[in-house]
Amino acid sequence: MDKNLNPNVINSIDPPIDEASSWLAGREFSEDKPLLDMAQAVPSYPPAEELTDYMAERVKLFATAQYGPVSGNAKLKTALANHMVGVYGGSIQSNNVLISAGCNQAYCLATMALAEAGDEIILPVPYYFNHQMWLEVLGIKAVHLGCNMSQGGLPDIDEARRLISKKTKAIVLVTPNNPTGATYPPDLLRGFFKLCQKHGIKLIIDETYKDFLTEQPPHQLFEISDWGGTLIQVYSFSKCFSLTGYRVGSVIAGENVIESVTKIMDSVAICAPRIAQDAALYGLEHLTSWVAEKRNMLKRRRELFNKLFRENNLGFEVISSGAYFAYVEHQYDNKNAYQVAQDLLDKENILSLPGTFFGPNQERFLRFAYANITRKEITDVIDRLNVSFNKP
Amino acid sequence: MDKNLNPNVINSIDPPIDEASSWLAGREFSEDKPLLDMAQAVPSYPPAEELTDYMAERVKLFATAQYGPVSGNAKLKTALANHMVGVYGGSIQSNNVLISAGCNQAYCLATMALAEAGDEIILPVPYYFNHQMWLEVLGIKAVHLGCNMSQGGLPDIDEARRLISKKTKAIVLVTPNNPTGATYPPDLLRGFFKLCQKHGIKLIIDETYKDFLTEQPPHQLFEISDWGGTLIQVYSFSKCFSLTGYRVGSVIAGENVIESVTKIMDSVAICAPRIAQDAALYGLEHLTSWVAEKRNMLKRRRELFNKLFRENNLGFEVISSGAYFAYVEHQYDNKNAYQVAQDLLDKENILSLPGTFFGPNQERFLRFAYANITRKEITDVIDRLNVSFNKP
Repeated sequence: MDKNLNPNVINSIDPPIDEASSWLAGREFSEDKPLLDMAQAVPSYPPAEELTDYMAERVKLFATAQYGPVSGNAKLKTALANHMVGVYGGSIQSNNVLISAGCNQAYCLATMALAEAGDEIILPVPYYFNHQMWLEVLGIKAVHLGCNMSQGGLPDIDEARRLISKKTKAIVLVTPNNPTGATYPPDLLRGFFKLCQKHGIKLIIDETYKDFLTEQPPHQLFEISDWGGTLIQVYSFSKCFSLTGYRVGSVIAGENVIESVTKIMDSVAICAPRIAQDAALYGLEHLTSWVAEKRNMLKRRRELFNKLFRENNLGFEVISSGAYFAYVEHQYDNKNAYQVAQDLLDKENILSLPGTFFGPNQERFLRFAYANITRKEITDVIDRLNVSFNKP
Repeated sequence: MDKNLNPNVINSIDPPIDEASSWLAGREFSEDKPLLDMAQAVPSYPPAEELTDYMAERVKLFATAQYGPVSGNAKLKTALANHMVGVYGGSIQSNNVLISAGCNQAYCLATMALAEAGDEIILPVPYYFNHQMWLEVLGIKAVHLGCNMSQGGLPDIDEARRLISKKTKAIVLVTPNNPTGATYPPDLLRGFFKLCQKHGIKLIIDETYKDFLTEQPPHQLFEISDWGGTLIQVYSFSKCFSLTGYRVGSVIAGENVIESVTKIMDSVAICAPRIAQDAALYGLEHLTSWVAEKRNMLKRRRELFNKLFRENNLGFEVISSGAYFAYVEHQYDNKNAYQVAQDLLDKENILSLPGTFFGPNQERFLRFAYANITRKEITDVIDRLNVSFNKP
């Protein structure tokens, strides 16, 4: 090890998606038993054709090849503010918005705007691994709030209260959750907001998967008159418009937070890619029905996944599910999640992520990103597990 | 001020490009005396038409809309490694390369991989302001190495040696320099490399403007057998292919540094935009002549700029110039650079950046990004200064 490298980076957790991908190296899958990949959270369908047609026009313009404003295209900021008001109600202005190059970057910007090395941020466990990794890189202490799996994987407000110290700068919630798929009820979110407000800390809510919720609104926090003093929402256009490779997301927050994240954005990225911002604006203006269609498709996949897991004795129980993910508990007492995930790949050509990628005490769980596969493939998963997988 | 925000961010220097842009707010310029904008460093020409034609095809592909590997497209990494070997000689492998979303991000990744809060990094002054801002955001101390303007703005190795402490993690050099345009001689770069190697610290060289050098190679550092233990090069495709709005650049370094920057990249961006990576690969494979043409055009602009400033008594003396920039010393004893820049805009509709944007003790200097304007416009600058600007 090079002792002149930053130890926070070297000692931070490793990106698990790369590890899961490495499991596939050198493997070949037969045509009659192809790989069923439920690992990474990526849309299984291409962007709308009308969207890529529009983008093909936009790449011909010089403006698309030039820097834009650091905080984002003004029209996109306004359109996003209006979209969010349409979904959540309340009051959101364009100066409450920064356009980032994806939601991971939005989270990076938001946490940096709040905390410096030595500060604390509360993360529910299981966590989205990049959230943990980034805090470790910055030398910010991630204080873990365990979620109760017997209660659908929801975090507890009283337990969160006990974890708040003088160094705490924020609580991070992800809803619909990655990895558990759990959708946090509006009342729970309101309780967390009040807790944060009382302690003068921020509530960061990652709503990357909000467009796949069938019940709206996800919460009423933007209706609180001084929401900007407490709430920071981070969001992505990647999932709703199938644009993961283009990198575009957002931070919505109080104006003073937006000022800080804008400074950081200037260093980290100058601005989000112009073509990605053009695509996001087109999507907001033209693709509401297209998004609804995908939402319904994922809902059907989820319903089928849950039904088949419930009806069949597969050695796995669904703890929670929503948006892209199901979090399942395995019943193999002599194996941990890592070994079960390896077995699923070795024996059944099914790729999933072990719960251990998402934090401590997750040896009993796996994340299945059912959104990645078709309904037919979901039945294939069940068939393979039913026919030959060694049940506990 | 919200006392629960990170003070490092709030207290960091403000992005000066935004301030310079704000000077233009509400102004109108007549047709007979239009704005001559030499502020931001942006290519004045669109990308090659064959390149945007290619990109219009690529946006139609589903693959372009999907995540790619965190460290970048494998073909692009290999092509860039080969390109650099073609320019510099030596040995660079694809596992020495990470593709970032622009050179600012490359610098962010490299500095984070080396230093944590409380560490030190040496920056020559005048600095590229985002380099300073980012270190302040992270709580890393930027130790300033003053450049001697009577020696063409070059940094001094002996002075750098005196600034190295136990907390020093790197020295940052930018060549061709932003803001001064100075091109650092290969021997000077070799001297800095040896200094860093001896002290076990890294030498970060920002070569964003290397493609506009008319003398090659810029240095022979990659020919040193263990260059990867000391050297980190950061680079951008934005300027050479006119792709600033797409966000694509690179880090070239030893494998262990690449491992660290890859972890940080996963958090900060997941991956550089795929369409931008496709464009960069196309550029490396097809646009060598196109880049050479632009290099020659900028060279002619620079020669004209230098000649006209030398031949005319304008109240400004060119200290150094190269690539995109000239750094000029004004002779207005009763004004600082900020006032001179304001006067140039108010009276002559010429936008430039005051040296004070680039660090302490720069009151005598201004940066003119002559690359932004045509040869005809350069003569207009001279005419306006000759005819009516109040000479000292």
